[in-house]
Amino acid sequence: MTRAGDGRPLRVVLIGFGNVGRTLAGILADPSPYPGLEGLAVSVVAITTGSSGALANPAGIALGSALAEYRTAGRFTPDHPDHTDLGTLDALTCLGYDAIVETSPLNVVRRGEPALSHARAALERGRHVVTANKGPVAWSYRSLMALAAQKGARFLHEATVMDGAPVFNLARHCLRGATVLGVEGILNSTTNWVLGAVERGASVAHALEEARRAGVAEADPSLDLDGWDTAVKLSALANALMHTELRPEDVERQTLAGVDLARVRDAPGRGRRLKMVAVASRAGGRVLGSVEAREVPLGHPFALVEGTGSILRITTDLLGSISLIEEAPDLRATAYGILSDLLSLAG
Amino acid sequence: MTRAGDGRPLRVVLIGFGNVGRTLAGILADPSPYPGLEGLAVSVVAITTGSSGALANPAGIALGSALAEYRTAGRFTPDHPDHTDLGTLDALTCLGYDAIVETSPLNVVRRGEPALSHARAALERGRHVVTANKGPVAWSYRSLMALAAQKGARFLHEATVMDGAPVFNLARHCLRGATVLGVEGILNSTTNWVLGAVERGASVAHALEEARRAGVAEADPSLDLDGWDTAVKLSALANALMHTELRPEDVERQTLAGVDLARVRDAPGRGRRLKMVAVASRAGGRVLGSVEAREVPLGHPFALVEGTGSILRITTDLLGSISLIEEAPDLRATAYGILSDLLSLAG
Repeated sequence: MTRAGDGRPLRVVLIGFGNVGRTLAGILADPSPYPGLEGLAVSVVAITTGSSGALANPAGIALGSALAEYRTAGRFTPDHPDHTDLGTLDALTCLGYDAIVETSPLNVVRRGEPALSHARAALERGRHVVTANKGPVAWSYRSLMALAAQKGARFLHEATVMDGAPVFNLARHCLRGATVLGVEGILNSTTNWVLGAVERGASVAHALEEARRAGVAEADPSLDLDGWDTAVKLSALANALMHTELRPEDVERQTLAGVDLARVRDAPGRGRRLKMVAVASRAGGRVLGSVEAREVPLGHPFALVEGTGSILRITTDLLGSISLIEEAPDLRATAYGILSDLLSLAG
Repeated sequence: MTRAGDGRPLRVVLIGFGNVGRTLAGILADPSPYPGLEGLAVSVVAITTGSSGALANPAGIALGSALAEYRTAGRFTPDHPDHTDLGTLDALTCLGYDAIVETSPLNVVRRGEPALSHARAALERGRHVVTANKGPVAWSYRSLMALAAQKGARFLHEATVMDGAPVFNLARHCLRGATVLGVEGILNSTTNWVLGAVERGASVAHALEEARRAGVAEADPSLDLDGWDTAVKLSALANALMHTELRPEDVERQTLAGVDLARVRDAPGRGRRLKMVAVASRAGGRVLGSVEAREVPLGHPFALVEGTGSILRITTDLLGSISLIEEAPDLRATAYGILSDLLSLAG
């Protein structure tokens, strides 16, 4: 049972009401199809957005009707009984809550802001942070973990890499005693989708259009194609699994534009496939990161990762190498990453 | 730190001194190459074997010299200062210890005995059980878990399936809130090795000889080739991950002898590969298990599992399907499964 410790439900401020936030809200509104969520006691006391309005209700927002209003109006309107003018930071300072769930989009230019400030504001008040926004993990992992420890709160981020697949929980709970020597993986759906389509003969433009129609690519896919999304994920992984401070801007990034497309199309004829691979490895006392186009043999698990799938290979001293594959996740998988963190808050 | 709770090291009775037991003893004798094991405080107070003698010393056995004697004499002799005549069950009843580490070989004919009795004897006294022997997990998971809960002890078994790869810890710590709908995997090295060699043109006899030389196959590989080893692993997985009671004898087993070898050799020509796949799935209110030869497409992760590698695919309601791959594990990986359980005992 996810409770605040004294029998009350966990009071949550949900930041962001995009695809992930709405999917989460839908599951919380009706968890009955999922027997494992029985007893999950979460009360969403506020939903804040960047520019689509906000709701707050200390007794808990009726999520079904909030979803219905958002679906109809495309935003929260002043007509909603729980409508509030509070901005996110003010809400985090003024309202009563136990945890924030951060689902706002990543902002690379602002190096993780404003999600980073949201996390700090909550932790300063001793409130837990569950983030699906990877910015704070990539740019400020160590200081946020230290602040959380100091304030007796937790900073959790399972949904930031590979959707809800348990990469951080795996490292935290399942690799105790082992030292992670390196990680590598295919972590960006848009790039991987485009490379697959180009290999089959499509142009990048056509592949992107298809990816957008399938809901895989953003309207502006440049963060993905330029390797930033992957670099941010790699930093998050390196910071949490390899106890280092690797910043996204220190990751060597190859962009999709820098890839020879003829090579992508020819590779299968050579028994290989071109994939964009993220790598973090120890060199000397440091951890180096890169995102690079690599030809992998068809008999390598990386070659099989298609479309929106992903893979992470973790190399350790005692256990050797293990890999985690996530197949074609849906939005529910990302929401699950958040749910698993909320369940962790129950202890 | 793995301690008994009051500052003493965790006192362990090690049952079995085969490859896994000796590898574990070697790491415990000198954990210095592994920074993650710093602070691991384990004292092996007894080592018992089936027919190779036993040692006991309440102050802790010097593992380096025990390994040296075993290497020289092939057993523990009465010349060793810690030599004892106690059998395993008597040792578990008479000696002072906090946990047993069970590394004796699986006995299918005796349905997990004598490991099952060892586990019961320890749990009855409120002592923890860490087992690499999968018999108790396959045949008595539910009753041992209940006994452990009743006595305030723990029953841990990470090393029983896929060596030290964290399959049970993954399910316990990383899939909270999700319901496991099914598992499938390639779980037996000997069969997988032989199928690979046969595909490349070898005879079964020749492949087995090679596998024995490589230390993969047992002198008597029948438990592996007849599917029993896989059935026992599948039962362990189903019992722990799917909350059922699936007994190995209820798993439908296809034996290697029942596989058409021509099909193994022809499959790649059809873009497929023949693999022995273990499957547990829900049907009606029950969980059904099978071990069956299956043709998997070359583009499927199962097709890439070579030699001693293994893979487990877990399908859940909320997270979809994830897979865990273990690459070419060595004995250290199995020993790591035990070490991770010992670290779990620290809480």
